[in-house]
Parts: sequence; structure tokens; C-alpha cells
Amino acid sequence: MKFTHENRLEMCLAGLPKSVDFEKVMEQLLTFHVETPSWGYGTGGTRFHTMRKPGEPRCIKEKLADAAQVHKHTGITPTVAIHIPWDKVSDWGELSSYASSLGLALGAVNPNLFQEDDYLKGSLSHREAAVRARAMDHIKECIDIMNTVGSRDLSLWLADGTNYPGQDNFRDRLRRMADSLAQVYALLGERQRLLIEYKPFEPAFYHTDIPDWGLATLYAEGLGPKAFTLVDLGHHLHGTNIEYIVAILLSRGKLGGFHFNNRKYADDDLTTGSINPYEVFLIFNEIVAAQAEPGAGGEGAGGEGAGGEKAEIAYMIDQSHYIKPSIEAMIQSVVNIQRAYAKALIVDRERLEEAREAGDMIEAEECLTAAFNYDVDPLLVEARRRMGVPDNPLAAFRRSGYMKQVEKERA
Amino acid sequence: MKFTHENRLEMCLAGLPKSVDFEKVMEQLLTFHVETPSWGYGTGGTRFHTMRKPGEPRCIKEKLADAAQVHKHTGITPTVAIHIPWDKVSDWGELSSYASSLGLALGAVNPNLFQEDDYLKGSLSHREAAVRARAMDHIKECIDIMNTVGSRDLSLWLADGTNYPGQDNFRDRLRRMADSLAQVYALLGERQRLLIEYKPFEPAFYHTDIPDWGLATLYAEGLGPKAFTLVDLGHHLHGTNIEYIVAILLSRGKLGGFHFNNRKYADDDLTTGSINPYEVFLIFNEIVAAQAEPGAGGEGAGGEGAGGEKAEIAYMIDQSHYIKPSIEAMIQSVVNIQRAYAKALIVDRERLEEAREAGDMIEAEECLTAAFNYDVDPLLVEARRRMGVPDNPLAAFRRSGYMKQVEKERA
Amino acid sequence: MKFTHENRLEMCLAGLPKSVDFEKVMEQLLTFHVETPSWGYGTGGTRFHTMRKPGEPRCIKEKLADAAQVHKHTGITPTVAIHIPWDKVSDWGELSSYASSLGLALGAVNPNLFQEDDYLKGSLSHREAAVRARAMDHIKECIDIMNTVGSRDLSLWLADGTNYPGQDNFRDRLRRMADSLAQVYALLGERQRLLIEYKPFEPAFYHTDIPDWGLATLYAEGLGPKAFTLVDLGHHLHGTNIEYIVAILLSRGKLGGFHFNNRKYADDDLTTGSINPYEVFLIFNEIVAAQAEPGAGGEGAGGEGAGGEKAEIAYMIDQSHYIKPSIEAMIQSVVNIQRAYAKALIVDRERLEEAREAGDMIEAEECLTAAFNYDVDPLLVEARRRMGVPDNPLAAFRRSGYMKQVEKERA
Amino acid sequence: MKFTHENRLEMCLAGLPKSVDFEKVMEQLLTFHVETPSWGYGTGGTRFHTMRKPGEPRCIKEKLADAAQVHKHTGITPTVAIHIPWDKVSDWGELSSYASSLGLALGAVNPNLFQEDDYLKGSLSHREAAVRARAMDHIKECIDIMNTVGSRDLSLWLADGTNYPGQDNFRDRLRRMADSLAQVYALLGERQRLLIEYKPFEPAFYHTDIPDWGLATLYAEGLGPKAFTLVDLGHHLHGTNIEYIVAILLSRGKLGGFHFNNRKYADDDLTTGSINPYEVFLIFNEIVAAQAEPGAGGEGAGGEGAGGEKAEIAYMIDQSHYIKPSIEAMIQSVVNIQRAYAKALIVDRERLEEAREAGDMIEAEECLTAAFNYDVDPLLVEARRRMGVPDNPLAAFRRSGYMKQVEKERA
Repeated sequence: MKFTHENRLEMCLAGLPKSVDFEKVMEQLLTFHVETPSWGYGTGGTRFHTMRKPGEPRCIKEKLADAAQVHKHTGITPTVAIHIPWDKVSDWGELSSYASSLGLALGAVNPNLFQEDDYLKGSLSHREAAVRARAMDHIKECIDIMNTVGSRDLSLWLADGTNYPGQDNFRDRLRRMADSLAQVYALLGERQRLLIEYKPFEPAFYHTDIPDWGLATLYAEGLGPKAFTLVDLGHHLHGTNIEYIVAILLSRGKLGGFHFNNRKYADDDLTTGSINPYEVFLIFNEIVAAQAEPGAGGEGAGGEGAGGEKAEIAYMIDQSHYIKPSIEAMIQSVVNIQRAYAKALIVDRERLEEAREAGDMIEAEECLTAAFNYDVDPLLVEARRRMGVPDNPLAAFRRSGYMKQVEKERA
Repeated sequence: MKFTHENRLEMCLAGLPKSVDFEKVMEQLLTFHVETPSWGYGTGGTRFHTMRKPGEPRCIKEKLADAAQVHKHTGITPTVAIHIPWDKVSDWGELSSYASSLGLALGAVNPNLFQEDDYLKGSLSHREAAVRARAMDHIKECIDIMNTVGSRDLSLWLADGTNYPGQDNFRDRLRRMADSLAQVYALLGERQRLLIEYKPFEPAFYHTDIPDWGLATLYAEGLGPKAFTLVDLGHHLHGTNIEYIVAILLSRGKLGGFHFNNRKYADDDLTTGSINPYEVFLIFNEIVAAQAEPGAGGEGAGGEGAGGEKAEIAYMIDQSHYIKPSIEAMIQSVVNIQRAYAKALIVDRERLEEAREAGDMIEAEECLTAAFNYDVDPLLVEARRRMGVPDNPLAAFRRSGYMKQVEKERA
Repeated sequence: MKFTHENRLEMCLAGLPKSVDFEKVMEQLLTFHVETPSWGYGTGGTRFHTMRKPGEPRCIKEKLADAAQVHKHTGITPTVAIHIPWDKVSDWGELSSYASSLGLALGAVNPNLFQEDDYLKGSLSHREAAVRARAMDHIKECIDIMNTVGSRDLSLWLADGTNYPGQDNFRDRLRRMADSLAQVYALLGERQRLLIEYKPFEPAFYHTDIPDWGLATLYAEGLGPKAFTLVDLGHHLHGTNIEYIVAILLSRGKLGGFHFNNRKYADDDLTTGSINPYEVFLIFNEIVAAQAEPGAGGEGAGGEGAGGEKAEIAYMIDQSHYIKPSIEAMIQSVVNIQRAYAKALIVDRERLEEAREAGDMIEAEECLTAAFNYDVDPLLVEARRRMGVPDNPLAAFRRSGYMKQVEKERA
Repeated sequence: MKFTHENRLEMCLAGLPKSVDFEKVMEQLLTFHVETPSWGYGTGGTRFHTMRKPGEPRCIKEKLADAAQVHKHTGITPTVAIHIPWDKVSDWGELSSYASSLGLALGAVNPNLFQEDDYLKGSLSHREAAVRARAMDHIKECIDIMNTVGSRDLSLWLADGTNYPGQDNFRDRLRRMADSLAQVYALLGERQRLLIEYKPFEPAFYHTDIPDWGLATLYAEGLGPKAFTLVDLGHHLHGTNIEYIVAILLSRGKLGGFHFNNRKYADDDLTTGSINPYEVFLIFNEIVAAQAEPGAGGEGAGGEGAGGEKAEIAYMIDQSHYIKPSIEAMIQSVVNIQRAYAKALIVDRERLEEAREAGDMIEAEECLTAAFNYDVDPLLVEARRRMGVPDNPLAAFRRSGYMKQVEKERA
């Protein structure tokens, strides 16, 4: 027997908690956006090998074209993060227009302070003033681009660190880093934000200058209301409770956004949700809970804000597609993120808080697992139909013939 | 609108892959058994504190009564592992009869070689012959009990290890351990098995004599066809791919069984599936795949066997319920395990192998995630109805009033 | 051939870098103190077993007597941290006098907020106001004791956390924790300090309310100049660079002190330096470097202070002697700490800074390894002779007959 | 005052345990060899960046010239491991002669089965017979080279693995790997050996086909007496006790050799001993203990052998010098390894065994720490003088002007 989408949706809705408002869920799904990274459309590699894949984009315009495919099929990825100088063009206005013509906009700007010999021993924390100045010039260039293309977020990941005990003076580096960040902050326009990313290791192997959320957040709080912490899911030591970090940042108004991906060992940059989908759900559960709280600032998956303002959370993907086809991997990740968010939206929060108040941790946990185990795909399909995108984004993209075509064009 | 179980099941079946045979799935769910541990009904503790909970069982008979509740409500836990001397009684025949009267049988026997001062520096690997002899006497006692109550499995976890570099001679310990295990093996009856458990640390903090699956399996292979490796989900270093270990053991015919639980950091002994449910699914996926292979030995979730025989896999829970009510935590775990197994049963294995053969890793992964994301609860409810147990075991147990009653009786 | 101490010392001094001032090193070694914990004289245990050892102290007075042995033989452990209620007495003045009579003073006070059923779901962050009030009463009691015995430091380790996803509302817990800490801070006397300890897991296994230095330090900075972060060497995830955390805390004036121990896997509480002695050296290297800096506040192993004041660093041991004899294990740890400090004192800091300035990381690293590989025992012996304690504290204690005597007395 | 080497040596010897025979130590130091890798003379990189350094060797002959510098200054690195095809030449006889002319010989041969697109999904375990055949052809080529240049060891590291759950059938891969290894084994000459390396992750991020010593050793034991396990210090999960693995392999006669390096987080390939020198010492302590045992097979740092034969242990370095100058980093590592070995040679093994026999773990540990803390540099200097190499290899190399010269020549 065949069932229609309407049948499935009806049965899905019948099983939802009473406290869940279907139209509110739809509204949240329809306004939820994930930013994909231009560099995620190229081929990633390991230190051992990088394979060029057929159809790989050769320039930022081709990357945008690929990103437009993801947006066309998922409906929720209207912006693309760019990386300078990888995506550098002579005419940013022209590139913005080109993006618009594809239904896209340029998103966060990511400076590159790790790919030149000068930065081998650091960039913003480098001992030599000349290297720091060079790094600062690059950041100025990035902010100029932000001004031109209308980007809100400067997404700052630093490879700064050392490889051996004794290599450099930690406290001097801390002073230099603090000074440099203050200079960066001073360059921001009124509505621009600095997102400070942390990472415990790689490419530096003994110490990283900003190793964890703690230091990133101390910097962000010291700098002011335009500085936030950026959480990359792969940048934690084993055993870290990431959803608790998310809750802390929400409670301090400092959750600037995410770099989504997944890992099993180190910073593996695998597709989001491919190793531990429950963790992605638990992260969204914290966000949705914060957002649902009275006074949290209304719609959209924003958290609490410092000074009563709503902090915007930038949901961004940062993956390296070593062996998977990039566009398909991106669609998988976007759908996994969307599904995790949808599951977080249908948690029975009334029952959850009652269970917690009663000290009933079994019942409280069941509120989460009931939502996680629930098949929310009818909700996703409904949202997709309302957005006018295919029911099954991955299958539709595969059927589209796009890859075949670009493999020919880009040969 | 209300939907009946029949509606839900029908829609569930409509969404299953063509290659999945519903009645075969039912048969597999109806013959799938999980063994619960007597000690899991008492209160676990940390090294900092143990809390006695109201209604806690005071003896093995009360533990069996609690275990019978889990079986009554889930239908799939007909056996109970026992721990000697914690569960020691004077009349084992009488205890077996008592278990039978509750619809239960006694399962694996677990010796205790870690809770006496004598064993502080080891048991089977202890430097002193007298301590090793004492340990061997205890194991003989356990095997006597196995003979009396009809247990098949001696489930051997050893706390043997050292706390400091230099404390003992590693290679001497290896020799003594090998000798002792050979003696244990020689004591086994024809249909009895030795399950060798491994663990990287705790309670020994510098080295554990059997730290990993590798050494356990080298021992098991050296001993012979009645020795197997036992996989406790909490006994791995961070980053270990447990499902791959399971696949290796299946391919060598040495997967003796599991101690199910979950952890986030160390050997946390949390309820199974509470931290990483996808991992539990991936483990069952390996088992079901092996079982589905031609020549793998037919029904039941067994793997390939040494010498062409089917190896039985003992699915056992080993948890320590520090703050959760024990019976409820056990039901949660049993249901989580059953759900993971059910999801593994509905993987589209034909499509999976085709995708692999075509080198299409996106499609191959989607075969797994489709099954994992599928709501198999209608299948579980159907199986429960066929077994005559409640649709929702946890809710039914909560409604039963059992805890209230034993809290009074055991005050 | 025999060599005298003088020979050895002369040769040792001949090999030291020119930039090292021998008399300054002596002065630093003679003023360096390590606090031992009363609870480290009893027997530690694991969650599996605790063994009572012969001669074990039965009360705080006997613990102090044991601590006096450590001080008598090492000369550098004049204070003893106490744990309430384990060490509770009716007359604190009398206990102080008793300590004085042994040449000791009472040191940091450690509240116990984890060993009662009430605290199973938290203490300062507990959902129920009554439990928080009870915890606050206990802290008040501890501060009263501090006032009576003249303690400077309230050393606060909290077991607060949850065991399962969903169990409690993270952001509510954060608010309650912040409120409670503010109340604790308000209770401190003018010269008293709050040391906030962090730990990523155990006894809570899903999340810990203060999991890392980052949150502890955000709290400490928010509270004010009397709040500091406490670093326990065993309370980090694998791969953490602890010496960098120490450098960060020094640079922010928030390094309150240490709980020294060592671990290989989790929070193993082994004797300090037994697993990774180089790490202990690298930690002291950061401290000595900070202390050697102009304006750092003079002698003593203090760091930089907030507002130009010198922050005192409380060097404390926190170990659990599961299988080692406690007094001997304590002496080993004290000597290992002292040796690591001595090695840090002889680092050629001039050459080190020159090498760093020249970008010569090989030379910079060699400055550290030269000091670490150097045999500083002649310096330690010289310091001991000046203090009037035995050349070899462990051997002298073993020869003293003390253990035999107390084994009889405490039988 | 100045002290001569003779003074220092005399004092050093005066402090050694009675059970240590100075001339035996000298003999062991003089016959101890470490193999350096050709690829360690080039510049390593991360996945983010690789920097070409001035003076970098451009071909295998220049790499050998650099390796000769390490041997010239340390005296203990007479062989160089090669990597095919990186070091491929048309005339292997000519290359061997060239090596001889530099006082070197070619050592282990390392096939490369990870740097071509074909191997993206595996080599020896690849699903396609054609790819496996290609890999096998490459190994045949390597063995031909071994035959020509007289190499004993085929050092096999495989990047085989998968990146995503479901990507391939684990048990099929296991069968193919076992088949392929059997084919490799069959190609070995009578005195040739297969060293099987294991690694838990990277470049594959979900599973590695040979993840740990356990599977490598099951393969080695299954293959026969010419197959051994190779231990790379960076290829373990956090918390692994590597010295215990070494002891297990020694006891089974399967320790084929080492790839020395060090790491703090993942497979960081830092200079050996730079992060945890005590671990290197503890590893050598196991080897020296095995070698010292009656019947262990006499001199040289060999272990026990299968069938009573002495197994040779290949001590090899495998590092990636990302930011350090390669030759200097290699000298540091060689010296660190030599120092760790020397410290292991002066452990008081009589006292150690007595302490263990008496159950005195404090005394047993002190036997190790006494050796580790001892300044063995006078012994190393004495050995160097007997070998006719400089007292301080690193300083001498720096003074030699070699780098300046090759920077000019190789510009």
C-alpha cells in the first residue's frame, strides 16, 4: 500500500507532544538557514594526499554555482562563506551580483593566516612586529571586502601556536594576541562581528594560542559586544561536552556561531552528523531551549543576548570532503543539521521542565530521546514543499544531471 | 486524529526497503534476548559516594524479582547473570527453581577477583602462587555453580594490573596470566565457554594485564574453541572504533558477547544508548550483516563460528545505576538495545552491497542512516504484542505500582 | 672511589649556566613549600575496593602526626590542608595548637559537598533552594574554621553535574552556580581567598558544572580579586596542554594554586611525577619564568598579580594512595615536585630568550631539556642540609621505624 | 672550577648501582644503532601548509649526504630507510655504493600505497582486484630493491581504511587484507622480514584496516616467523600504555621494531622524546629487561625470539620536521633515544627484582626513577669518544658549517 505525504504528515502530527505548535515549527524550519563554505566545494585532502575530482570547481564563481545547487535542492543555504585569498576577485561588486543572480549572498569572510611561510611561527601572536602587521593588513583587506559585499561576520581561525616546549614565551604570545585582537576589533563596522574560533591542536602540535572556548570567550568578553565565540564541532579534545559549552555561551550572550562537521578522532572534518548524530541534536536542543525561554528575543534560532539583545547565531558548515563528492556531502550535512534542528523543535519542553522539577531524570531523558527517535521527515518534507524544493534533496540533486554537466564543462 | 497500532504498522511497513522481510524481522525480534545482571538491580556508586535507594533489593532473590519485572515488561530478558560471591546462596538448585518460578533462568556466572585485599596486586597474574591458587579456587567454585544451575558462560573480568611504572615485571605477569587462563580453560565442561573481558584501565591505573581486544583474542585463540572475547562498550580508549572490533571478532569466530552500557569519558557504566545511540546501531549492523551472510549459521543474532559452527553471542548488560532507579534504567537500556537491533534488521542490505560495489559511499552511508532515522517503534510494538508484553515497557512498569510496593516491603 | 657531597655539589655547580645564581636558587628552594592533604594519609580506594592498611591514621591528629613525618624528612611541607567534615573536631584552637606542637600549621580548608545523598544532583547548583542553603551552611562552617585556625584558602571542588542528557537545565544550573559562588565570595574575610577547582568528569558522567579552567576563570574574574582558579593535574581531558593553562592564569593574575598528582587515563590520583615528570617540570618552568620577570613581585614562586600585586600560588598535593603506603607516596611526590622546581630554577633563561628572539627553536628547546636532564640532586641535598633534614628523605623515613611503631599503636 | 670528562665519568660511575657493569654498558652503547629515514631529511608539512626550507635535499643522494652528517656526529645511525617511489633511482647498485662511500648502508624499504588516486579507498584491502594487484606489483618492486641493496626489512604502513560508516564491508576488507598479506609474505626471501605497522586513524577517519597492535600481531602470528609487528610511537589512542605493548610483543617474539617520534595529540611526528621522555625510557626499560634475561639471546638490544631465536629489533625514526631544521631535529631525536637507552641500561635490575619479589612497589619504582633522573651524559660522552665522534653531536654539527654550505649548493 502507498501512503501520500499528507497521510504521513497527519500521522506524524498525531504523535507530536501537545505542547508543540505545528505552524510554529514550520515557521522555524522555514527561517532556518545554514551557510555553506566556498572551500567545501573543492577537494579536501590529508597531509598524505589530495585527489582532484572530476567536475571540481576551478574558481569562486564555479563554487558559487555549486553552492546554488545545494540551496536549490535544500532551500535553506542562501549564503556562502568565503575565504581570502582563495576566493579573491578583482571586482567584489561583480561577484556579489553574480551571487545574487544565483539566489545567493556572500556570507562570513574567513581570513587566511596560515598558508604562507611567514606565518610558520604565528600570525597575530608572532614575535615579529612585521609579521603581525602583515597579518593585520590581510584582516583589513578582509574587512574591506566585508564592507563591499555586506558581510556581517569576520570568522577568525588562527593556526598560531608552537610545536615544541620552549619554542616561544607563552605569556608574551598572550599579550601580543590580546593586542592584535583589540586592533582587529577596532576595525569592525557598527553591525559587523568578530567570531573567534578555538582549536586545541593542528597545525601546531605542542600548543595552540587559542586552544579552547574558555580563552576565546575571555577574549570575546574583554573586547566587547561585537566579539563572539565560534564553535567548530571538530575542535575539541575527546570527552568534551560540546552542548554544555553551547549552553554556557548562550547564557553569556557569546555564542557567535558554528562550524559544523563531525569527527571520530581529531579534526577529521567529516560530514556533519555522520559519526554522532545525537550530539548534533543535543546541541540544537540547547539552542531551541534558550530561544523558547521568555525574554530570549523571539523567533529564529537566536540565543540570549548580552544587554537584552538577541544574539544571532551563524550556522555555518566547515568540512573537508576528501573522498566524498563535495556537493552531495554538503547536501547530506545540511539535511542532517536540519533534521537535528527539527527534532530539537519537537521536544516536549513542558513535560521536560515538569520532569526536571520533579527530579525525574528518567522522564526528562525520555523527553529528549522521544524527540530524537521520532521520524520528523514528514515535517521536513512539508517545509520543503512550502519552500518549493524537492522532498528528497539528495536524490533530486543526483537525478538533476548537474554533476555530469559540470564534469564536462570543467574538464 | 487518532491512529491505531495497525495504521502505524501499515505505514511503517510501506516505508521499509523491499529487501526486508517483515515476518523474518518479527522472528528475529521475537528470538532476540538480552541478559540483565543481578548487580545492576542494586545501587551503583562512584569512589566518592554510594546512595542507598528506597526499594533496593537486599538479596539475590529480590534482585531476581526485579529482573522478572524487566522481563515481564519487555519480554526479552529471560536470563540473569550472577556475580559470585555477591549472589552466593547455600542451595543453588533452590535458587534455580525460584528463578524458574519467575519465568527466568540464571545466566552467565561472573567471578569476583577484585574485592579482597589479597587481590590488590593481581589475581590470576599475581606474583604469589598462593594468591593465584586462591583465585583459581574461586573460579572452580564458579564453574561448580555453572554446572549446578546450567550456565553456559563464565564471564571473566579481571582487575589485574599495576599502578606504577616498575611495580611488577610485565613479562612475568603475561606468563602467569597465560598459565592461569589455561588452567581455567581446562576446567570448562563440554558446552561451557570462557568469555575473556578486556579493559584499558581502572582499577589499575598504570597498566591492565588484559587491556584490549587484541590480547584477549590472542588468549582466546591460543586456548581453543571454547574461549571467546567479551566486548564491554565502556572498556575502550577514546576514538576506538568498536564496531570494527566487533567485525574482526565476528570474522575470527571469537565474538563471545557484550557487556552493554554507555560512557562519555571513562568506564562510566551509563544506560546503553544514552550517550551515543548511533554507535549501538553500528555494532548491531555488523552483527546482522554477518548473520545475513550465506553460511553464517542461520537464525538468531549469531556470527560466524570457528570450524563452521555458529558462535552464540551473549548479549548482556553491565551497568551501574548511580542515580537512576535501577529497574527503570534497565528497561531503558533493554529497549534501546532492542531498537538498535531492529534498526539494523531493516537496513537495505541489497542496496548497500550494490552501492559498495559501485564505489558509491554516499549511497552506502544513506542505507545506514535511512535505517537509523526510521521510526521502528511500530515494529517493536508489534513484536511486543506478539510476545504479550506492554506496548511501552517503561510506562507500563511505572504504572504497575511495583516500586511503591517493594519500597514498603524492603524498608 | 667515594665522592663527598661537596665534590658532587662543586661539579654540579660547574655545569650550571652562568646566568644561574646558586645562592638565589638555594633561597628559592628554602622558601618553597608544598602543602600536603590530611586525606592523603588515609587509604584511597577505587569504586571497586578500598583496603585498610596497617598503621593507617584513625583521626585528624594521627594524620597530622604522619604529615609531620613528611615535613620532618623533607623540610618543605609545613602546612596541611584539611577536609570538612572528615577532619572535624570540637575544638579547633586545640587542634591548631597540636599542629603547632608538631611544627605544622593548618592550611587550606576543603568543604565536602559530594558525600551525602542530598548532593546527588548537585550542591551549589542544585535545583532546590533547601539543598543550596545546606551547602552554603557547610561553606559558612568551613569559613568559620578558617577564621579560627587562620587559613587563607577555601579550596572549592564541586561534584555538581548531571549523568544523562536532559537531566537538568544547563542554563538554570549556570545561573544558580553563579549566584551561589557570589554568596560564597561575600563570606570571605579580607585576606582570604576562594580557589575554584575544575574537573571535566567524575563523579558526574555527562556534564560537570565547572568542567574546565575557562569557566572557573570566568567565575573567578567575575567575582573579584579574592577569587582564583585551582589547577588539579588530573582534571584535564587527554591532550590538554596544562603548562599553557598555567601561563594563561599567570598572565591574568588568576593562578590560585595546584592540586598535584599524576594520571595516565582519567583522574587517577597517582603520585606526582610518576607518569609524566617532564610535564611537572614544564609547569614549573612557566611559574619560574613569570616570577623571574621584571615587576613580577620578587621572591617566592609567585606569579604576576592583578593590579600589580603578587598572587600567591598555593602548591598543594591531592592524591589518593590506593596501593602505596601513604607517607612514602607523599614523600615521593614532595621530592618529585621539589626536583621539578629545582630543574626549572636552573633553566638558562638568558640563553632561552636569546634563542627565541633569534627564532632558534632547537636552541630554545635545548635550554629546557638541558635543565631537565641535569642531575639537580646535589642542589637538593645542599638545600636539605641547610634545612637540617636528611639527604634522602624517603630512605631516612624508611629507616626511622615510624611505620612499625604506628602499626603497633594504631592496630 | 673546570672538570674534565674523566672527572665527570669517574663521579658518574661512582654513583651507579653495583649491579651495573660499566664495560658491558659501553659495549651495548657502541653496538646500538638507530636507522634514520630518508624522508625525514626533507620538509614535512601539515594538511594546511608545507614550507620549503633552504638547503633542503632535492634527491635521495642529497638525503643520504644529510644522513651521513647525522651518523658522522652521533656515530650510531649507519643505515637509512628508504621510501619507494620517493627515493627511486634507476641504478640501485650505484646508490648502494654511494651510500657505502658515505659510511652508510640502505636499510628498511617502505612501500608507498597511499599517494595515488587509485588508493583512495584502500590498497591491499581494496575492493577491486586490479587495485590490489597494482599494490602487489609495487611491493614486488620494493622486494626486488631489497634484494638488490641487501635490505632485511619491508616496513609496511598502510593507509587503508574508510571515512564513513557503511562505506565498505569490514569483513570483506579483513579477508582481502589477510589474503594480500599472505601474498606479500610469500615473496620474502629467507632472511627478509615483514614489519606490519598499525595506526588507529589518519588518513582514514572512520576506520583503519590495521588499527592496533592486536590485529597487526594476529596477522604476524598467522603469517609465520618472518612477520613482525612495528610500533610507531605516534600511532596510539590517548591513554595507551605503549611499554606494555612492547612487553607483550617481546614475550611473543613479535617485536619487529619501532618508528620513533613523539606526539601530544594525534600522530604529530614530533622529535622523539620532545613531549614525554619518560615514556621513551620506559619502553627501553622493557627491552633491556628482556635482553638481560637468561636465554634471551645475548648482546644487542634484541628481545626473545620465537623458537628460541633472538628477534632483532629495528630501531627506526619516523618523523616529519615541519618547522625544525631536519638534520638538527634528527640529531636531537637520535641523542634522546640514545640517552633513554643508556638510562635503561643502568637500572639496578637486581634491586628491582628483589623489590618486586618483596612486594615493595615504592622501592621498585625508585629503581626506575633513580636511573631516569641520573645524568648519564658522561657515559654517552665516553661512548662517543670511543666511537670517535664529538662529545656534543648537535653543537658540533652546528659548528660544522654544513648547513650553510648545502644552502648555497642546493639553492
